[in-house]
Amino acid sequence: MADIIKVKANSRTAAVAGAIAGVMREHKHVDIQAIGAGAVNQALKALVLAKGYLAEEGIEIICSPEFVDVDIDCKVRTAIKIVVDPKN
Amino acid sequence: MADIIKVKANSRTAAVAGAIAGVMREHKHVDIQAIGAGAVNQALKALVLAKGYLAEEGIEIICSPEFVDVDIDCKVRTAIKIVVDPKN
Repeated sequence: MADIIKVKANSRTAAVAGAIAGVMREHKHVDIQAIGAGAVNQALKALVLAKGYLAEEGIEIICSPEFVDVDIDCKVRTAIKIVVDPKN
Repeated sequence: MADIIKVKANSRTAAVAGAIAGVMREHKHVDIQAIGAGAVNQALKALVLAKGYLAEEGIEIICSPEFVDVDIDCKVRTAIKIVVDPKN
């Protein structure tokens, strides 16, 4: 199973982007998970950067967002999971 | 040229989702634009809902985020544009 990259509101965009690109290179698939507006925003910004890095290497990516329920400290919260795959 | 759906932090998710689905049905393409974390979060949540609506009709969608510079009151701000296309 490929990695899940969990993004927080205070995650550094460039670091997350590097992680996304790294997992995509290795696994040709990555799931990015974020809870809350700040985290979702960081995740999407990192994804734009990662898309640029990977495009330079000839890897085009597409993404598809979905909701997932996540258990945090015994409370169920709704996260957004962004599923990233190669375009072709 | 297809419509751009501009999402704000206080946009209603269901209304935006309906708009996304409507434009996709008609134009087979839609651009969603959001500035700021709250707006980006609403846009992504609406996109998940719209994806569900369209999947029920047999329309699978994929998305690709990018940065765009937008002029607002003579100030340049960076928006996130989510480009949505049919999967096949």
